[in-house]
Amino acid sequence: MTELSEKEESAQRRKRTGIFTRISRHIPHARRRSPPGTAPGTIIPDPEAARPVVSVIQYGRDFFVEQKLDSISELKDMIRDDGVCWINVDGLGDIQTVRTIGDLFQLHPLALEDVVNVHQRPKIDDYDDFLFLVAKMPISGKAFCTEQLSIFLRGNALITFQESPGGDCFDQVRERIRKAKGRIRERGSDFLCYSIVDSVIDVYFPVLESCSDQIEVLEDETVVEPNPEVISKIHSLKQDLMTIRRAVWPLREAINILLRDSGSAITDETRFYLRDCYDHTVQILELVESYREMCADLRDIYLSSVSNRMNEIMKVLTIISTIFIPLNFVAGIYGMNFDPDASSLNMPELRWHYGYPAILLFMSASAIAMLYFFRRRGWF
Amino acid sequence: MTELSEKEESAQRRKRTGIFTRISRHIPHARRRSPPGTAPGTIIPDPEAARPVVSVIQYGRDFFVEQKLDSISELKDMIRDDGVCWINVDGLGDIQTVRTIGDLFQLHPLALEDVVNVHQRPKIDDYDDFLFLVAKMPISGKAFCTEQLSIFLRGNALITFQESPGGDCFDQVRERIRKAKGRIRERGSDFLCYSIVDSVIDVYFPVLESCSDQIEVLEDETVVEPNPEVISKIHSLKQDLMTIRRAVWPLREAINILLRDSGSAITDETRFYLRDCYDHTVQILELVESYREMCADLRDIYLSSVSNRMNEIMKVLTIISTIFIPLNFVAGIYGMNFDPDASSLNMPELRWHYGYPAILLFMSASAIAMLYFFRRRGWF
Amino acid sequence: MTELSEKEESAQRRKRTGIFTRISRHIPHARRRSPPGTAPGTIIPDPEAARPVVSVIQYGRDFFVEQKLDSISELKDMIRDDGVCWINVDGLGDIQTVRTIGDLFQLHPLALEDVVNVHQRPKIDDYDDFLFLVAKMPISGKAFCTEQLSIFLRGNALITFQESPGGDCFDQVRERIRKAKGRIRERGSDFLCYSIVDSVIDVYFPVLESCSDQIEVLEDETVVEPNPEVISKIHSLKQDLMTIRRAVWPLREAINILLRDSGSAITDETRFYLRDCYDHTVQILELVESYREMCADLRDIYLSSVSNRMNEIMKVLTIISTIFIPLNFVAGIYGMNFDPDASSLNMPELRWHYGYPAILLFMSASAIAMLYFFRRRGWF
Amino acid sequence: MTELSEKEESAQRRKRTGIFTRISRHIPHARRRSPPGTAPGTIIPDPEAARPVVSVIQYGRDFFVEQKLDSISELKDMIRDDGVCWINVDGLGDIQTVRTIGDLFQLHPLALEDVVNVHQRPKIDDYDDFLFLVAKMPISGKAFCTEQLSIFLRGNALITFQESPGGDCFDQVRERIRKAKGRIRERGSDFLCYSIVDSVIDVYFPVLESCSDQIEVLEDETVVEPNPEVISKIHSLKQDLMTIRRAVWPLREAINILLRDSGSAITDETRFYLRDCYDHTVQILELVESYREMCADLRDIYLSSVSNRMNEIMKVLTIISTIFIPLNFVAGIYGMNFDPDASSLNMPELRWHYGYPAILLFMSASAIAMLYFFRRRGWF
Amino acid sequence: MTELSEKEESAQRRKRTGIFTRISRHIPHARRRSPPGTAPGTIIPDPEAARPVVSVIQYGRDFFVEQKLDSISELKDMIRDDGVCWINVDGLGDIQTVRTIGDLFQLHPLALEDVVNVHQRPKIDDYDDFLFLVAKMPISGKAFCTEQLSIFLRGNALITFQESPGGDCFDQVRERIRKAKGRIRERGSDFLCYSIVDSVIDVYFPVLESCSDQIEVLEDETVVEPNPEVISKIHSLKQDLMTIRRAVWPLREAINILLRDSGSAITDETRFYLRDCYDHTVQILELVESYREMCADLRDIYLSSVSNRMNEIMKVLTIISTIFIPLNFVAGIYGMNFDPDASSLNMPELRWHYGYPAILLFMSASAIAMLYFFRRRGWF
Repeated sequence: MTELSEKEESAQRRKRTGIFTRISRHIPHARRRSPPGTAPGTIIPDPEAARPVVSVIQYGRDFFVEQKLDSISELKDMIRDDGVCWINVDGLGDIQTVRTIGDLFQLHPLALEDVVNVHQRPKIDDYDDFLFLVAKMPISGKAFCTEQLSIFLRGNALITFQESPGGDCFDQVRERIRKAKGRIRERGSDFLCYSIVDSVIDVYFPVLESCSDQIEVLEDETVVEPNPEVISKIHSLKQDLMTIRRAVWPLREAINILLRDSGSAITDETRFYLRDCYDHTVQILELVESYREMCADLRDIYLSSVSNRMNEIMKVLTIISTIFIPLNFVAGIYGMNFDPDASSLNMPELRWHYGYPAILLFMSASAIAMLYFFRRRGWF
Repeated sequence: MTELSEKEESAQRRKRTGIFTRISRHIPHARRRSPPGTAPGTIIPDPEAARPVVSVIQYGRDFFVEQKLDSISELKDMIRDDGVCWINVDGLGDIQTVRTIGDLFQLHPLALEDVVNVHQRPKIDDYDDFLFLVAKMPISGKAFCTEQLSIFLRGNALITFQESPGGDCFDQVRERIRKAKGRIRERGSDFLCYSIVDSVIDVYFPVLESCSDQIEVLEDETVVEPNPEVISKIHSLKQDLMTIRRAVWPLREAINILLRDSGSAITDETRFYLRDCYDHTVQILELVESYREMCADLRDIYLSSVSNRMNEIMKVLTIISTIFIPLNFVAGIYGMNFDPDASSLNMPELRWHYGYPAILLFMSASAIAMLYFFRRRGWF
Repeated sequence: MTELSEKEESAQRRKRTGIFTRISRHIPHARRRSPPGTAPGTIIPDPEAARPVVSVIQYGRDFFVEQKLDSISELKDMIRDDGVCWINVDGLGDIQTVRTIGDLFQLHPLALEDVVNVHQRPKIDDYDDFLFLVAKMPISGKAFCTEQLSIFLRGNALITFQESPGGDCFDQVRERIRKAKGRIRERGSDFLCYSIVDSVIDVYFPVLESCSDQIEVLEDETVVEPNPEVISKIHSLKQDLMTIRRAVWPLREAINILLRDSGSAITDETRFYLRDCYDHTVQILELVESYREMCADLRDIYLSSVSNRMNEIMKVLTIISTIFIPLNFVAGIYGMNFDPDASSLNMPELRWHYGYPAILLFMSASAIAMLYFFRRRGWF
Repeated sequence: MTELSEKEESAQRRKRTGIFTRISRHIPHARRRSPPGTAPGTIIPDPEAARPVVSVIQYGRDFFVEQKLDSISELKDMIRDDGVCWINVDGLGDIQTVRTIGDLFQLHPLALEDVVNVHQRPKIDDYDDFLFLVAKMPISGKAFCTEQLSIFLRGNALITFQESPGGDCFDQVRERIRKAKGRIRERGSDFLCYSIVDSVIDVYFPVLESCSDQIEVLEDETVVEPNPEVISKIHSLKQDLMTIRRAVWPLREAINILLRDSGSAITDETRFYLRDCYDHTVQILELVESYREMCADLRDIYLSSVSNRMNEIMKVLTIISTIFIPLNFVAGIYGMNFDPDASSLNMPELRWHYGYPAILLFMSASAIAMLYFFRRRGWF
Repeated sequence: MTELSEKEESAQRRKRTGIFTRISRHIPHARRRSPPGTAPGTIIPDPEAARPVVSVIQYGRDFFVEQKLDSISELKDMIRDDGVCWINVDGLGDIQTVRTIGDLFQLHPLALEDVVNVHQRPKIDDYDDFLFLVAKMPISGKAFCTEQLSIFLRGNALITFQESPGGDCFDQVRERIRKAKGRIRERGSDFLCYSIVDSVIDVYFPVLESCSDQIEVLEDETVVEPNPEVISKIHSLKQDLMTIRRAVWPLREAINILLRDSGSAITDETRFYLRDCYDHTVQILELVESYREMCADLRDIYLSSVSNRMNEIMKVLTIISTIFIPLNFVAGIYGMNFDPDASSLNMPELRWHYGYPAILLFMSASAIAMLYFFRRRGWF
C-alpha cells in the first residue's frame, strides 16, 4: 500500500492487458515552481540541478581565447573589452554563479529567475539594455526530452545557460569559431546568437525524421495486425509531436519578434540569416502538422481495421449458425419419440425405406442453398 | 414527489448504474442576477453573502500600519496622504460598506454593481480616474471552485473585494510588506496591484498539478479496467479544465490591455513584472490545452479499449459456437429415431462395431480443424 | 394524400418509434421575403402581422407625458421640442403607420423595409442622420422564440418597432422613467436607447438558466436510462443554444460598433454603460459555448452508455451460450442411438452404474470452470 | 468494356444496393481550362457554349430605349452619350462578340479571358478604368446549378455576360427600368450594377428555402425509418449547401471590397443599398452554416438510430437465446439414453410418476425467472 | 533480417490482408539536410542529384538568342547588356555551376544554399538587390511528385534552377518567346517571371482533375462494394491533396507578398497578371478544400455502409436463431425419454393419434408468428 507498491501493481495489471505504452509520460508538468506568492525575482535553484560548469570563449577577427573557469570569481578579470565574449554556463545548481553573472552584466532579477525556473515557455523579452531569449533544446540521444536554453545578448557579450553539462549541440559552432570557418569570426555577438539558435533548431530535424520512421512502422502494424497497443502508440507519437510543437511554435514567434522589433541589437546582415532560421521553424511546424494529421489517419485506419475484423468474425458466426441451426432442428424432429405404433400418423418416415438417405439429402440441399444465398450476398 | 425526493430518486438510480460522476456540477450558472430591466448601477447584495471584514494596510519606504476596522465609518479618518493604502474587504454581504468605500474613492456605480454581482467575467475596465480589474481566484482547499476578486486602483490607493473572508492567497504578499522583503515597500500601488494579481495566477499552478495527477490515474483506469464511469470522469476533468480556462483566458486579455493601454497608472518598471505575469497566464492556458487534448486522447483509448473487449467477447462466442454447433448437429443426426429394422439404409452406422468411436474421432478431428483455422486467422 | 394527411401519417409513425423531439422545428427559415428583384425600399407588410398600437412617452428632467395614439395622424402634433421622445410601435400590420413615422423623422426607405421584413440579422446601420439598430428579443413565456426589435435613434427621438403587442420587457424601463428612478430622466435619448438594449440582453439570462436546468435533467436521463429520444433532445437543446447565439453574436458586434464608431450620437457617460452591456453579451456567448460543449459531452456519454449496455447484453449472451452449448453437446452425445447391443464399443457408458451421475458431475464441473474463466477475465 | 458499359454496370450495381444518391455529382470540376502555359489573355471559347444574343437597354430620367442586336457590328452606332447604357450578352459561344465589346470599351484581355473561361471564383477586380465583377447565379428551375455572370462597370456603361440565354433573374429589373418604378431611372450605372447584383443574391433565398424543406423531410426519414440511402442524401444536401457557400462567400468579399475601396465608381447613396446587399449575403451564409450544422446533427441522429436498432436486434437475439438454450439443455439431459435398467442411478426421474410435469414446471419457472431478470435490467 | 527482408516480409503480410495502399508513402520527409550546426550558406550538393544542363535564352523586342552551354565558364561572355536574359539550370549535381552563377549575379550564399537544399517551403525572399522565389512544380507524368523550382529575379536577368533535366512545363513559354506570340517579347524580366510562375500553377489543374476522377471512382466502390482497402485509398487521396495544399498555400502567400511589397521589381502592368495568378492559386486551394471535404464524406459513407452490412448480418443471424431455437426446444421436449409406461402423466402426447401432425402444425404456426413479428418491426 506504499506508493511504490501501487505503481508495481499498476505495472502488473498493464502486463496482463499487454499494453505498455503510456501517453501520460508526455504530460507537461505544472510542478516545481516556487511557492505561490514568492517575491518576484527570487532565485530558488532546483536542489537536484547539476553544479554549473562555466566556460568563456572570446574572439575577434584576429584573436581567439577559450577558457574553463574554476571559480566564478575569476570571471570579472577575464573579460576583454574588444571582440565578442561568449559565456556558457552548463548546470543551474549553484545560485552564486547565476547571481555573479547577473550582477556583472546588470541582468534583471526577473530574467535570472526565469533562467533557474526551467519550465518557461520559449520567448524573447526585450529589457531595453539586453535581450533575453528562452528556447527548448532536444537532448541528443534522448528523443523528445528537451532542456531549457536561456540566452542573454548584451552588447558584445552573449551569455548562455543550459540545464545540464554535456550533450549540447554547439560543438560545430565552437569549431567554426576556433578554426575561423565561415564568417562567424568577422561578425558580432548578434551573429553568434543567431548561430546558437540555428543550431538548436537544426537538432529538431533528426528528431522529426525518427517520427516519420515511426509512422511508417505504425502503418504496417495498423494494417497487418491491429492490436490494442497500436492505438496507444499512435497517441503517444501524437503527444511527442505536440511536445515538439510546444517547443517550436513560441520559438518561431520569438524569432519573428526579433526580426521585426529588435532595434539595433540585430544588424541587417544577421537579419537575413535570422529569416532563414524563421523559415526553418515554419518548416518544422508544417512537418509536425503533417505528421499529426497522419497520426489521425492511422487511428482512423486502425478503427476501420478493427471493425473489419469484427465483421469477419460476425460473418463466420452467422454463416455457421444459420446453416446448422435449421439442420439441427430437422435432426431434432426425427429425434422425437412419437410412437409410430400408436398411430399411423406418428412419424411414419422413420420406417420408410429411403427415409434416412432422403433426410440426409434434404439437409445437404438446404446447406448448399444457404451457402449459395450467402455467396450472392457477397459474404464470403 | 417533492423536489427533494426527486433528487433522492435520481441518486438511487445512479447508484444502480454505478456512475456517480456528474459533469453538470461544473455548469457555469446564469443565475442570481438582478431581475431584467433593473436600473444600471443598482447594488443588490446576495442575501447569503458573508458579512464584510475590512482591513487596511498602509505602508511606505519607512512606515507600515496594519489595522482591522470595527466600523466602516472609521475608514475615512484612517487614511494617510502619503504611502500606499491597501483596503481589503472580505465578504460582500453589507451594502453600506461597499457604498461608503465607493463614495470615499468616487468609484463608478457600474463598477460597484459588478463587485457585488459576483458572476462577472474577468476583465479590466478603465474608468479614466481609476482602473477596475475583476479576476477569478481558486479557493484554496476546494479545487475548481473560484471566487471573484475585484480590484480598484486609484492613485495611491488599492481596494480589493473578496467574496468570502479567509482562505485568500495574499498572506505572502502581506508578509513581504510587513517585513519589507523584496522591493515591494519601495514601490507604488501599481506594484502592489501586480503582486496581488501574480499571487492569484500562481495559485492556478498547484490546481493544474492535481489535474495532471488525475490524468495519470485515469490513463491506468482506462487501459487496465475500462468501466463506464471512466468516460464520465474524463468529461468531468475536461469540464474542470474548461473552468480554469474560462477564468484565466479573459484574465490574460485583461493583463495584456493593462500592459499596452494603461497610460500612467502602471510604471515602466512594474510593466516588466506584469509581462512576467502575462507569460504565466499564457503558460497556464497552454497547459490547459495540453491537458484537454490528453483528455480527448484518453477518451479515444477508452473507446478503443471497450471495442477491443467487445471483440474479444465476440471471438469467444464465435469460437465456441462455431466449434460446437456442427458437432451438436452430428450428435443430433445419430439421435434420430430412424428404424434400422425397417430398412437396411436407415442408419446402419448405429450398429457398426466401430460406429461410436469413429464418430467421436470424427468430431474431435473437426474441432481440431476449426481451432487450427481460427488460429491461422489470428483469432487467439 | 393531402399534405395534412401526410403530416398525420408522419406523426403516427413517430408515435410508433416513440421519438417526438424534432430538431428541425428550430430551422431558421429563409421564407417570407419579398419576391426576388423587387425594388429596394419597397415595404410589403406581412398580411398576418398584428395591427400596430402606437404609444408615445416624452420626458425631461421635470416633466413626463405618456400617451396612447388612436390614429397615427395625431402623432405630428403631439411631439414636443424639448426632452426625450420615445415612440413605441407594437405590431407591424399597417403600412401607413410605418410610412407616416418614416416621413416624419425622414428615415431611409431601406431601413423601413428592414423594420417590416422581420427576418433581419441583428445589426447597427449608421445612416449619417440617424442610427438604425435591429435586435432579436426573446418572447417572454415562449422560450427560444424571438421577435424583431427595430430601434431608430435620431436626435432626441427614439422610435422602437416590435413585431407584436404585449409581452415586451420594457415595463421596468417605463417604470423608471415614470417614477424618475435612477438617472434615466436626467439623460438623453442615447441613454434610453442603452436602457432598452440592456433590457433585451437581460432577458436572455433566465432563458439560459432554463437551458442549464435542462442539461442537468438530460445528464440524468443519459446516464440512468439512455433511450433513443435523449439524442434528439440533446440536439434539440443544442439548436436552441444556436438560436440564442445567432441572436446575440451579431448584437455584440453591433454594440461594439456603437462603442467605437458612433460619433456624437452616444455620449461618453452612456458609453460606460454600453461597455457594461457589451460585457453582458460576451458573458451570454461564453455561457452558450459552455452549454454547447456540455451538450457534446452528454452526447458522448450517451453513446458510451449505449455501447456499454450493448456490451453487457453481449456478455450475457456469450456467457449463457458458452456455458450451455458444450453441455448441450455432451447431452447430445449420450442421446445418440448407437446400439450398445451391436458392439461393446458402442456407448458402454450408458450402462455403467455411475454413468449418469458421472456425466452430471462432469457437466457441472465444466460449467463451473467456464464461470471461473469468465470471472477472471472480468466479465461479471 | 467501353466507358458507357462501365457506367451502366455501375448503375446496375447501385440498383442492387438501392442507393442512388451520388454526392460526387456536386464535385466542382477542375476541367475545361485552356492548356497549361497558354499566353494570358487568350480567349478560347467553349465549343459547346451557346451563340450569344446581345440586347441593349439605354435609359435616363426621361427616355428609355430597348434594342436586340442582329449583328454585333451595329453596336457601336447604337450607343448614346447620355444616360445609362446596359449591354447584356446571353451566351459566350462567339469569340467575335466578346472581342468587339472588349475593344469598344477598352476592356483588359485578362478580364475578357475570365468572361469566357466560366470556372472563375466570384470576385471583383479593379482595373483603374473599369470595375470587373464575377458572380455565380443559380439557374432558375435547376436547383444547385449556377452559371457565371460577368459584369463590367465603365463610366455610364454596364456590360453583363451570361453563360446561356434565357432564364435570367433580371426581368424585374428590366420591368422597373421600363416602367420607371422606384428610383432606378433617376440614378446612374452604379445603381443598375447594384440592382443586378441584388437580383442575383435574392435568387439564393428560394434555393435555401428548398434546402430547409429537405431537412425536415430528411429528419422524418432519419427517425422513422433509417435506411442506408439517408446518409447519402444528407451528404448530398451538405454538398449542395457547400456549392451555395462557395458561390456566396467570395461574392460577399467582393461586395465588401466594393463598399470600402471602389473610389468614385460607386456613389454614396448607392453605397447604402450595397450595404443592404452585403447584409443579405451575410444572412445567406449564416443560413448555410445553420443548415450544415443541422445536416451534421441529422447524421448523428441517423447513426444513433441505426445503433439503436442494432441494439434492439441484439436484445431479441439474446433474450430468445438465453431463455431457450438452458431449457434445451434440460430437454437434452432427459433425451440421453442412459439405461435405467442397468443401474438405479441412471435417470430414475424418467420413471417417476410426476417426472414429466415436474420437468415442464421447472422449465416454465426458469423461463419466467429469466424474463423477470431481463425486465429488471430494463431490456424490454 | 536485413532491412530488405523486413520490407519483403511486410509486403507479404500486406498481401495476406489484401490492402496495398500505403498512406505513409506521402510522408513529407525531414531528411537529407546538412548536419546540424553547419555554417549557414554552405552549399552541400546531393550526391544523387543530376548533372546540371544550362541553357540561356536572351530576347528583346527585336532579337532572340537561344544557347545551350557546354561549360559554365562560357556564361560570362555570353550575356548581353540589353534585353531580357533567362538562364535555366536543369539539375543541381554540380556545385561549381551554382557557385559561378551565384558569383556572377552576386546572389546571397543563403539563397544558393536553399537552391541546392531542395526541401524548402515555397517562399519569396526579398534580398534588396534581387528577389528569390521558391516554388514546387508537379513532375508531369508522375502525379503528386513535385520538384523544387528556384527563381532569381535580378534586374533584366532571370535565373531558374530545376531539380532534374527534362519534363518541365515551360515549353509553351519558350515557344511564345521564340515565336513572339502574345506580348512576352515586349516586356521585361518581371513578365517572364510571372509567365513561369503561371505555368507552374497551371500544371496543378490537370492534377486536380485526376483527383476528382478518383473521387467518383471511390464513391462507387464505397457504396457498391465497401472493402477494407477503400478506407486506405480515401486517406491516400486525402494525403495527395494535402501534398498539393502544402505546395500551393505558401506559393499563394509568396505571390501575395510579390503583389503588395515588391517595390519596383514588378511593373504595374505585370501586377494585373500576377493578380490573375493569385486568383488561380486561390481557386486551386478552394478545389483542394472541396475535395478534402468530399473525402471526409466518403469515409463517412463507407463507415455507414459497413455498419449497415453488419446490421444485415446480425438481422439474418437473429431471425434464423430466433425462429429455430424455440422450435428446437419443442423438438427436444419430445425427444426426452420419459417412460410413458411408468406413468400416465409421462408424455402421453407421444401416443396420441394426431400428436405428430399437431406438433408440426404448432411449430409451423410459431415460425409464421415470428416472421410476422419481424416483418412488422421492419426487419426484412
